[in-house]
Amino acid sequence: MDQFWKWYQAQVERDSSTVEEIPFSQLAKWYVDQSRGDLCHDSGKFFSIIGVRFTVEVDELTQQWEQPMVNQPEFGVLGLLSKQKDGERYFLMQARMEPGNINVIQLSPTVQATTSNFTRVHAGKKTDYLDYFIEAQASHILVDSLQAEQGGRFYQKRNRNIVVEVDEDIEVKEHYCWVPERKIGTLLWKDNLVNMNNRSVLACYLSAGVTSESIGLNSIERVISWLTQARVRTKSKRERIPLKDVSNWKMENCQIRHVTRNYFSVVAIKVTSNNREISEWTQPILKESKLGFIGSLIKKFEGVDHYLVRAKIEPGNIDTIAIGPTVQYSYENIDQDDRFMPLFSNAKLGEIRYKARLSEEGGRFYHNQNDYMAVEIDEDIEVPATHLWVSYSQMLQLIRYSLLNIEARTIVAGVNVGLHAFKHNPWPH
Amino acid sequence: MDQFWKWYQAQVERDSSTVEEIPFSQLAKWYVDQSRGDLCHDSGKFFSIIGVRFTVEVDELTQQWEQPMVNQPEFGVLGLLSKQKDGERYFLMQARMEPGNINVIQLSPTVQATTSNFTRVHAGKKTDYLDYFIEAQASHILVDSLQAEQGGRFYQKRNRNIVVEVDEDIEVKEHYCWVPERKIGTLLWKDNLVNMNNRSVLACYLSAGVTSESIGLNSIERVISWLTQARVRTKSKRERIPLKDVSNWKMENCQIRHVTRNYFSVVAIKVTSNNREISEWTQPILKESKLGFIGSLIKKFEGVDHYLVRAKIEPGNIDTIAIGPTVQYSYENIDQDDRFMPLFSNAKLGEIRYKARLSEEGGRFYHNQNDYMAVEIDEDIEVPATHLWVSYSQMLQLIRYSLLNIEARTIVAGVNVGLHAFKHNPWPH
Repeated sequence: MDQFWKWYQAQVERDSSTVEEIPFSQLAKWYVDQSRGDLCHDSGKFFSIIGVRFTVEVDELTQQWEQPMVNQPEFGVLGLLSKQKDGERYFLMQARMEPGNINVIQLSPTVQATTSNFTRVHAGKKTDYLDYFIEAQASHILVDSLQAEQGGRFYQKRNRNIVVEVDEDIEVKEHYCWVPERKIGTLLWKDNLVNMNNRSVLACYLSAGVTSESIGLNSIERVISWLTQARVRTKSKRERIPLKDVSNWKMENCQIRHVTRNYFSVVAIKVTSNNREISEWTQPILKESKLGFIGSLIKKFEGVDHYLVRAKIEPGNIDTIAIGPTVQYSYENIDQDDRFMPLFSNAKLGEIRYKARLSEEGGRFYHNQNDYMAVEIDEDIEVPATHLWVSYSQMLQLIRYSLLNIEARTIVAGVNVGLHAFKHNPWPH
Repeated sequence: MDQFWKWYQAQVERDSSTVEEIPFSQLAKWYVDQSRGDLCHDSGKFFSIIGVRFTVEVDELTQQWEQPMVNQPEFGVLGLLSKQKDGERYFLMQARMEPGNINVIQLSPTVQATTSNFTRVHAGKKTDYLDYFIEAQASHILVDSLQAEQGGRFYQKRNRNIVVEVDEDIEVKEHYCWVPERKIGTLLWKDNLVNMNNRSVLACYLSAGVTSESIGLNSIERVISWLTQARVRTKSKRERIPLKDVSNWKMENCQIRHVTRNYFSVVAIKVTSNNREISEWTQPILKESKLGFIGSLIKKFEGVDHYLVRAKIEPGNIDTIAIGPTVQYSYENIDQDDRFMPLFSNAKLGEIRYKARLSEEGGRFYHNQNDYMAVEIDEDIEVPATHLWVSYSQMLQLIRYSLLNIEARTIVAGVNVGLHAFKHNPWPH
């Protein structure tokens, strides 16, 4: 790992990126749509900032609000190259600059590219290693699924999470480094190091080859039934509305903000970089008003880890409800339940299964961090209908079928990557 | 089974229902929305006929069309009661009149009710046995998932498919009969007997307790990856538009039809019945222009049945692509592939694993029948990227996670229900 840290330090030192907030009027290649007020890229590609009205009724309580959201209707590629050598599995990590990262450089998957990126709408450099994913042979794909991102900020966004195994030696370019699976667990405990997309792909990797989904306190049928009941209880309606009509939000020179200054704001930034496909650009980006907290309770039943998950209503999810961690104070919480918080705040050191302060996607979120924590409890607790104990192998099944939200996938990756490196090695050959 | 047929004949004889086509102007409690032209119920409940514009781009070919669709945003309940007695599993079947059934009475699940039905928007009788499902204890629920219906006709419709086991003896009302699982296979081969909702719930029942999803020619990861690739290849957009603006469709006194008279039409009917919650009503209903054909190829790999499935684009699916059978000529086919047809038309008797002429949901479809067929082949065939061989246990996993469309679920039920009655008995107690 000395070698890894040396490489990483060199990447950080070599980076000369700059990021500065600018007024919206200085956004180049972006415009405000005259009729809707949406903030769009001249190409019609990349992403746009739109308005959304969300109405949700649960148990006869109806709530409605309007908010800006990021609309990015393309499927991007989050691709991780993997190889096995001397009985060990390695992943090709990228030291990648993202303008929203509080520390600029973090570890991303090998490839992290929107369709606009890799079809080079920006007329920049070709995405390195992309062909390994676009042209991958079926027999070399370990996992390959569409996974949703922050349902409170993105309008139905999903990215393709794909892990491809290479047999041959390949050229390792400057910003890249092979990292052994068993070491990634350690890296995940570092604050702001392994980026969000990487955590998501690593969580998907864990699901490769998992079969024993029936082991658990609850059968997988019970898990699906619990989710079905949550969906039946919830009536929701999501409408795209013009950004200029979003009530309680104000467009100012330098930000689009909520009248209370809570939640988040949309700001504009100017970026220069020697690390990316193009060397200079401007873009809108989301700035959260505060540090978030995301926590999962873990409890062993018959020796097996179970996660206390929640049926989480999020306006941007294609099917409204996704399965999230026990608590998620990362944005507006219409259905928060504070009862579990003392179990996190009073956790003893030996009960903490995962803990790190992590950045959300630095291409869309500006200096946005959440404290992640997984705590193992011993005591019996009362579980409300919104929550359910789900075993580790069931969690992996839920990842396989794209049912865990990004926050829950981060928890699963944080607790487990590296831990099972020798026990769980899919597709040995 | 003599007893079953005696009961069924009695039900048919006792039925004095009448159904007649009427002009739209005679629809009672329905109105045409002035601004949109949508056909709606006075209560704002049940369902409505709306307009949809669908645009889909696959491999650089873009197609766009507009059509009427049925909008029914509620989750209905399709519930089957089950019990075990003397080592055998029984299901409580209902002899149910549906106005669109070509033979009026068919076998439905124990409960088949829209939310409007069971909350009695129609002010009719209470739905029998409903409480067994609404108030079911988790430990008695065998399966419980939301499943989509015809994605070419319904706008994002899903119903809750639920099987509940009862321990105690319960009263069997007039229209109901306990039928043993191993006999249902025979009933499924009868033309127009087991109704669509029943086939769907029975297919879900088969998935209860299945675990061996990794057995197959293709790993389950490969199946998911294939579906992911189909989704990535497909760009689609679905927009609700006013019914009056749907191009190429005409509203006449007695039907809404395509200018070519192809596809389907919307007609109005008046119904009287002594079998249902209310004794008289009128409603719009969809009339297909021709008999459809739905076929699945089956092939054994290492002794295990594999189904040749297709990534099927359907405008009404929440996520556009669902997994369908090998061929599906049940409505507009933008992505049909005729290469497989000779394998069905030339099939020898011994190769036919399932065959029946079946009605689609008689509450929404008028005299709509499809010929269903599953044919086992021996020879190797070329499989295009749109198709994939999926093992039986993987099919059941796909049902569990709501990924198989209604046509594919019907095939799975037709081929397998009853067959595994002794081998596959979930939740023994």
